[in-house]
Amino acid sequence: MISGERFSVIYRLVGKEKEAYRKARDICLEQTVEFPEELIPDGMIKDEIVGRIENFLPVSNNVYEVTISYANELTANEFTQLINVVFGNISIKPGYRVERLELPHSMLSQFQGPRYGRAGLREYLGVKDRPLLFTALKPLGLNPEQFADMAYKCALGGIDIIKDDHGLTDQVFAPFNERVYRCVEAVEKANRETGLRCIYVPNITAPMDKLLARAKTAKAMGAKGLVVSPAIVGLDAMRFLANNDEIALPIFSHPAFQGSYVLAKNNGISHFALFGQITRLAGADAIIYPNYGGRFSFNREECEAIVMGTSVAMEHIKSIFPSPGGGISLDRIEKLLEVYGREVIFLVGGGLFKQGNDLIESCRFINQLVNKY
Amino acid sequence: MISGERFSVIYRLVGKEKEAYRKARDICLEQTVEFPEELIPDGMIKDEIVGRIENFLPVSNNVYEVTISYANELTANEFTQLINVVFGNISIKPGYRVERLELPHSMLSQFQGPRYGRAGLREYLGVKDRPLLFTALKPLGLNPEQFADMAYKCALGGIDIIKDDHGLTDQVFAPFNERVYRCVEAVEKANRETGLRCIYVPNITAPMDKLLARAKTAKAMGAKGLVVSPAIVGLDAMRFLANNDEIALPIFSHPAFQGSYVLAKNNGISHFALFGQITRLAGADAIIYPNYGGRFSFNREECEAIVMGTSVAMEHIKSIFPSPGGGISLDRIEKLLEVYGREVIFLVGGGLFKQGNDLIESCRFINQLVNKY
Repeated sequence: MISGERFSVIYRLVGKEKEAYRKARDICLEQTVEFPEELIPDGMIKDEIVGRIENFLPVSNNVYEVTISYANELTANEFTQLINVVFGNISIKPGYRVERLELPHSMLSQFQGPRYGRAGLREYLGVKDRPLLFTALKPLGLNPEQFADMAYKCALGGIDIIKDDHGLTDQVFAPFNERVYRCVEAVEKANRETGLRCIYVPNITAPMDKLLARAKTAKAMGAKGLVVSPAIVGLDAMRFLANNDEIALPIFSHPAFQGSYVLAKNNGISHFALFGQITRLAGADAIIYPNYGGRFSFNREECEAIVMGTSVAMEHIKSIFPSPGGGISLDRIEKLLEVYGREVIFLVGGGLFKQGNDLIESCRFINQLVNKY
Repeated sequence: MISGERFSVIYRLVGKEKEAYRKARDICLEQTVEFPEELIPDGMIKDEIVGRIENFLPVSNNVYEVTISYANELTANEFTQLINVVFGNISIKPGYRVERLELPHSMLSQFQGPRYGRAGLREYLGVKDRPLLFTALKPLGLNPEQFADMAYKCALGGIDIIKDDHGLTDQVFAPFNERVYRCVEAVEKANRETGLRCIYVPNITAPMDKLLARAKTAKAMGAKGLVVSPAIVGLDAMRFLANNDEIALPIFSHPAFQGSYVLAKNNGISHFALFGQITRLAGADAIIYPNYGGRFSFNREECEAIVMGTSVAMEHIKSIFPSPGGGISLDRIEKLLEVYGREVIFLVGGGLFKQGNDLIESCRFINQLVNKY
């Protein structure tokens, strides 16, 4: 009944050696049997079901990294239960942090991962090797006509991907159907003029009873990708959409409501694991995150960890695009090109508007910057 | 287009007065327009869409509480978008914490909340006014027959609610259908013998494509309630299930993967708001959380805040049961009765087994304790 195949999670534990080791033992129980150790019956449960400490190493003063392996069968081939085994109950205890996952072929083969990934998205957009450009329609409160006008100008100016601001859902001032219809139309018009393949990607983060319908409507109206905030609809809802062959659109993951997992140094999940590995398993083709030096607090090291997580080898699970945003001003792009290289999607929202009154010109300016690179 | 109706969120901000006030202003923009303040056009967007500081008060040294109001229309009557407005992007910034929601009638009326609530669940279970008793089938690795035997004994011993351990989904060693079938049968058999109305509640936390099917299967097989981990399937998925009239079963919310929101004192969401107010809006009839003094780190004050959140006035949104668990040993029950009173569901898992070899006797022991009270 138990194959012997196991997957591993590396946790970072805080405490003196004895305390950290106690925490490691605690994970083995808490994430599996949730049962007093002394009462666990001998045999399969003790030998196979309880997590197993494979490695326990100091990484700095009072910080340890422990590798714990779990029987594949614990996850029942379910992404939801994989998340639960990795960090369900342990999320409620201070001083435990998920650093990275180590998933063998037998586990990875249960997931499809991103449909497009980096190479697929480049082909889809017809952009060979320069950094990609991404913007957001904002501010909330404009009407569909105004958003469509903005989308038209950004597409004319050479932006590759134009998304809804993540707070745009189905508000009275910009109803979903009308907004999607108009923005698709505007971007297609611009594409006919430029010969480019800019895409408009609506936000479909929505109540469960409307989520799939919105994705289908968007697809039917000609939208070429989807924005999803997985912490709001559930990571698995994103996976479900990404794996849906009828929809088959690129997925852009937005970090709204997800920050609490990464902000505390000693709790939660690492940037590498959450925005990289887990987001890939959940099927996103690009992960939006707040860049260092903008409005948010991630530092450069954390952003680089995300980039690593988006491309670390995971067999058939494709590499995805890091998409730094959150207050990127255009004058930082050249510096950021040096840091991120070409395999990046720069998300520039407010920065485009700060650049000057002519939105098309601002887009052309940034387009030239990345084209030179 | 904008009604003028607004709802409010109280945030706790850390910093000196000037810094805290800057954070308050930042919330007003970040949670709505996400746009440079100086570029926001005059008129409706500036006047109505941008969040509004209604109150700003010091609560202790370098800690402030700010009340920010938002136009109802921002949420588009969607629970997902309400969550996003309350704590979407701000979740990614350190030093911002949601303390509580203040929702007017116009906002509350958009939500059904719990179907049963405290009074409804008491009626459903036929237990008038004593504290309720809850246990979990564990450890993972047992087979359906063993779980059913355990359920039978617990039901005979006077436990009111018997749930799957939250890690039980559809593993090969205890497949969902067989487990639910056998456990329902076992509890019904015990009920025929005792004349009581014990219920078995399976865990239906599952991938999106299986979630509803599992709930329906459980209902069809005679399960009388459902366990859901909302951080894993999405808070709104729980609301969806709770509001489904075809299912119409009590919902027990499990905190797996949810801990990161509450662990950091200065970030995230308060225990009161997350486990109380938000969980009620999401339709749970009881909220499971780790009790103080057990295996987890919540302190008594935090647990009392949860209790307050489960019953604070929210118009037609019913009060729900706090369900402390996570390492409650039977010798603490008497003390906990003094703290929690009668309006509580004690979740006792491993503690029952630690009590002695005779599970029925252990259940009777705790049943007598709460019946005396």
